[in-house]
Amino acid sequence: MQTIPTTTAVKPPLIRTTEVSAHVGEIVQLQGWLHNLRRLGGVSFLVLRDGWGTVQAVTEQEAALLPLVENELNTETVITLEGLVASVPQAPGGIELHQPRITVITPVREPLPVVISKREVNASLPLMLDHAVVVNRHPTRRSVFRLGAGVMAAFREALAQRGFTEVQTPKIVASATESGANVFKIDYFGRPAYLAQSPQFYKQIMVGVFQGVYEVAPVFRAEPHDTTRHINEYVSLDVEFGFIENHFTVMALLRDVLAHIFNRLVESYNPELSLLNAKLPTVPAAIPHLHFTEAKELVFQLHCKNLQGVDERNEPDLSPQEERWLGEWAQKEHNSDFLFVTGYPMSKRPFYTHPDPARPAYSNSFDLLFRGTELVTGGQRLHRYEDYLAALSKANLPTAPFETYLEAFRYGMPPHGGFAIGSERLLMQLLGTPNVRLTTLFPRDLNRLTP
Amino acid sequence: MQTIPTTTAVKPPLIRTTEVSAHVGEIVQLQGWLHNLRRLGGVSFLVLRDGWGTVQAVTEQEAALLPLVENELNTETVITLEGLVASVPQAPGGIELHQPRITVITPVREPLPVVISKREVNASLPLMLDHAVVVNRHPTRRSVFRLGAGVMAAFREALAQRGFTEVQTPKIVASATESGANVFKIDYFGRPAYLAQSPQFYKQIMVGVFQGVYEVAPVFRAEPHDTTRHINEYVSLDVEFGFIENHFTVMALLRDVLAHIFNRLVESYNPELSLLNAKLPTVPAAIPHLHFTEAKELVFQLHCKNLQGVDERNEPDLSPQEERWLGEWAQKEHNSDFLFVTGYPMSKRPFYTHPDPARPAYSNSFDLLFRGTELVTGGQRLHRYEDYLAALSKANLPTAPFETYLEAFRYGMPPHGGFAIGSERLLMQLLGTPNVRLTTLFPRDLNRLTP
Repeated sequence: MQTIPTTTAVKPPLIRTTEVSAHVGEIVQLQGWLHNLRRLGGVSFLVLRDGWGTVQAVTEQEAALLPLVENELNTETVITLEGLVASVPQAPGGIELHQPRITVITPVREPLPVVISKREVNASLPLMLDHAVVVNRHPTRRSVFRLGAGVMAAFREALAQRGFTEVQTPKIVASATESGANVFKIDYFGRPAYLAQSPQFYKQIMVGVFQGVYEVAPVFRAEPHDTTRHINEYVSLDVEFGFIENHFTVMALLRDVLAHIFNRLVESYNPELSLLNAKLPTVPAAIPHLHFTEAKELVFQLHCKNLQGVDERNEPDLSPQEERWLGEWAQKEHNSDFLFVTGYPMSKRPFYTHPDPARPAYSNSFDLLFRGTELVTGGQRLHRYEDYLAALSKANLPTAPFETYLEAFRYGMPPHGGFAIGSERLLMQLLGTPNVRLTTLFPRDLNRLTP
Repeated sequence: MQTIPTTTAVKPPLIRTTEVSAHVGEIVQLQGWLHNLRRLGGVSFLVLRDGWGTVQAVTEQEAALLPLVENELNTETVITLEGLVASVPQAPGGIELHQPRITVITPVREPLPVVISKREVNASLPLMLDHAVVVNRHPTRRSVFRLGAGVMAAFREALAQRGFTEVQTPKIVASATESGANVFKIDYFGRPAYLAQSPQFYKQIMVGVFQGVYEVAPVFRAEPHDTTRHINEYVSLDVEFGFIENHFTVMALLRDVLAHIFNRLVESYNPELSLLNAKLPTVPAAIPHLHFTEAKELVFQLHCKNLQGVDERNEPDLSPQEERWLGEWAQKEHNSDFLFVTGYPMSKRPFYTHPDPARPAYSNSFDLLFRGTELVTGGQRLHRYEDYLAALSKANLPTAPFETYLEAFRYGMPPHGGFAIGSERLLMQLLGTPNVRLTTLFPRDLNRLTP
């Protein structure tokens, strides 16, 4: 049935690169960027990139390239490309355009600051970040951010299916409440105000309204860290819900949300995952869990000799090395990329954390380790008004800045809890990226405010 | 088939208020807040509210209320309620719980600062806003915000279906670029930085990556307005896409997105729309449009005598009164709640606006009026690097603060455009709410930073 249509006054259909394979034998029209142009012994290979993929056009006719050549145009020139779709097994994707006709929409004459027409971006991290405006156009780079969109969509979908309601809570707040030091200060019409470090207080308040809520929004941390894992503005995936039994109810939901996210990525983002060689984890039906004290003891049993004689069992936190060891243990013993560590000491958790009723020095909280690194923090919160007054007093915090937050508890809150996932951190660990700045669209750090 | 089951050691199923009607004749268990308790001549009516709705329980047994009465508990006490589901035509929703058994989860003893157990919230605006933490629990109040969640979800769905990609762009920016005056200043590790007024520059940049993008995120406006229509932080629904012909391509997409949003609300949010008596508009297949100059002339023809002799045809903008008149005209002449006004004077639009090639004093931009008030602004943007240099020069703006933004245009951008919808403003106009603060979860204005 492959009859070759003749070109008529009727314009060929305008399609996307991802639709080309459905049009073999037809003349089609595409719009996009000149991604690459190679000329090998009389044959020219032109790659057009649009918002979704790339397609290669091949010609032996030098004249076909005239619109590009006569003006010495560079890659990233915006063009319309017409051509006949041919099935060519050895071509990328098994498809090529023949008899190309090029029309220039927006010419580019200057060479790019970073070459983005090769299979990989070959540039230093600072150069990539300085020129993220163009570097993010590269197929591997934009795949990262398309997966980011997929993570957000799947997160919302998992929670909407369970009857949770989306909220968008204020980012400008009156007091540097949750932990005084790490907030950015704003000049709010001559008064001081702050950027919210997290939607923690508001998502708890909203449990009183909707029972279960989620939020996908930026959070701001004025932490003067300069590490590969910290940025000062990131997208937080937040959940909070009521009528839980304890933190294990929260952990069960987190398990299901993560499983939904990874399933969705596999279903809908296969091209991006392949391009990035991503190894997606299987989320076990029940993620193994260890109490903090068990985890400490386990690490000591397994690795005490590696610790240069220092017994860290009494440290109230896990070191990154300990987390890696626990990750290896979970892999070996449970064949799991994931491990919950529960019951962190109350001394290391914020004032609103619910203690373990049986062992009040430990909390009803958890961290989720993913491949040996902390990915999610969550837990049960206090819900009784009098418990908040006692907790603030114990933490030597005044009640006045918390007045509106406390109103939620004064007027009836159920046992509740939740968790927060850093979206860029999740992508970083999922893709094995060495620096969270590479899974952030336009990162903000100690030294970087642009682009 | 209505046999009354006997209570056994097996706990009755825990269900939501919205599921009760499917359990007539069964004993069920619900968890939520004591929304209301009325005692009328020996009969007590108890209303339980959970995150999704309310259900009424009725009893003549004083003893059933003992857990509430003996401790003098108030509304908003968190309870578990067991009861036998009965079909009672005269009850709210046609359903009642009989033989209620109440267990207190979290007691509330203090009277509420604002009564939220009646059909309406009867309080002044400041009182409602001061106590939004509890007032937002009221069924009418939370319906507003559940519709807000519906608007966001439907907006994203409309764009995802069309191949657009979601982005989350930085809110902390290096320079007060788009219009210098109205930005909040931040102390960023000792350096000045600003809160983004809009994702305008970043969404344009991202057209170079994904071709079509959308974002749902907070924007920050340091405008010292004190009106019923302005707040200083709101949720902006942003769209930008490439390969458009002109602003009419953008208007066509906007029309379809709005139609999708309203259809979704009708499909999925009927209880909320009914409770709020919302009159949803029909979006015409083609929304009528007038050029700015035609709109001015039309208003003059229809209403010049109302203007106390002042001829406003040469004013470069439409007054709120003129917008109302145009809204009435669209309703009368086109039976449309919507009217596009296109081609606003370039002098009133930001530097990146694309001029009308045929009449360069006017722009390829538009406002969408909804029921006589501006709801959406959008248009075509410049896309050639040299046009940006000329536009910045004409506006007496330096190029340095725009360096990374300009990089997008230097390296190839197609004709593109987009629009932005204020989510709270949309809800306000849709619901006929007198003040945008009432469609904002926790509003921020000149005087208000809490709750």
